[in-house]
Amino acid sequence: MKIILVGASGDIGSVVHDELAQRHEIITAGRSNGDVRLDFTDHAAVRGMYVQVGRFDAVVSCGGDVTFAPLDKFTPGSLMHGLRQKVLGQANLVLAGLDTIADRGSFTLTSGVLDRDPIRMGAGAATANGALAGFVTGAAIEMPRALRLNVVSPGLLDVSVPRYGKWFPGHKPVSSEDVGRAYVKSVEGTLTGQVIIVE
Amino acid sequence: MKIILVGASGDIGSVVHDELAQRHEIITAGRSNGDVRLDFTDHAAVRGMYVQVGRFDAVVSCGGDVTFAPLDKFTPGSLMHGLRQKVLGQANLVLAGLDTIADRGSFTLTSGVLDRDPIRMGAGAATANGALAGFVTGAAIEMPRALRLNVVSPGLLDVSVPRYGKWFPGHKPVSSEDVGRAYVKSVEGTLTGQVIIVE
Repeated sequence: MKIILVGASGDIGSVVHDELAQRHEIITAGRSNGDVRLDFTDHAAVRGMYVQVGRFDAVVSCGGDVTFAPLDKFTPGSLMHGLRQKVLGQANLVLAGLDTIADRGSFTLTSGVLDRDPIRMGAGAATANGALAGFVTGAAIEMPRALRLNVVSPGLLDVSVPRYGKWFPGHKPVSSEDVGRAYVKSVEGTLTGQVIIVE
Repeated sequence: MKIILVGASGDIGSVVHDELAQRHEIITAGRSNGDVRLDFTDHAAVRGMYVQVGRFDAVVSCGGDVTFAPLDKFTPGSLMHGLRQKVLGQANLVLAGLDTIADRGSFTLTSGVLDRDPIRMGAGAATANGALAGFVTGAAIEMPRALRLNVVSPGLLDVSVPRYGKWFPGHKPVSSEDVGRAYVKSVEGTLTGQVIIVE
């Protein structure tokens, strides 16, 4: 398969890249790294990327910022930042690709653990993750041409513990192997409309 | 209790008003109806309302538009409309009220069935509903002064069937009595951080 991987340079993106590159052609896309430079909050830019790439079979997104802040410091802007970056950006990859991806292609997005196992300062992440779950549930039933759509919701990665572990007290890290498997399940399997939890 | 009810003129809001007004003082707020006129996507306007009202014990929101459209006609603007109106608007009621609501007060928001039982053209609603579930899960654990936060997720109301039933094939309508009970549970009970499903 020819797979477009958005956000390949992050902790999750690196795992996904290493796993999928064993069997597939990967084209990486990102704001500041990748074969293609992309601001995925810009719908026209996403369409432009798809035209540039030509035929492709799957899109995997591991990208999207959210704001972390104490609830009493959370502003409308903090909340909208995550909704725009993590939700709209990833949704754009789907909406702009419905008529360009190959038949039976798939879209795999990334959310995270914080809407089912919240932490302090994580309200924005929880909101974005919940939105992505809702989007996948709602949109998957209308996908044309047997296209598929899932979102992977991983816990804190083992490799991310040194940097982020202190913000996730008591969270059991998930292995990179298990995270890679979840993306393989979505891309190479036949699931659709699912939140694929890794814990 | 003194309760601010946002969106009291809709099908759900009317049910909630009739139920809670039996035992509490209700102040209604809405874009075009109510004791107070309010654009709840405007954080400063929400703060202004709270100052105007003075001491209050609970906020119940039954408001928030989303765009309904086929997935292949869905645009970034369609998606952001719901995230701004239904998610940011309701979140503003919480964020702007953290320091003004009475101790042990509660916020009760409203989502809906479409993120667990989707219908055609409902991807925007599903996204917004999921976001609200995530927000409540993430924010409830950081509420000060024993404040509480829940979201009620009702199925299609019996009274809404004549207008909307054709878009919800096979959905079993929920009774107004059961919807009213869910809001009573949130406002008068002790739950927090919950998605209160009515089905």
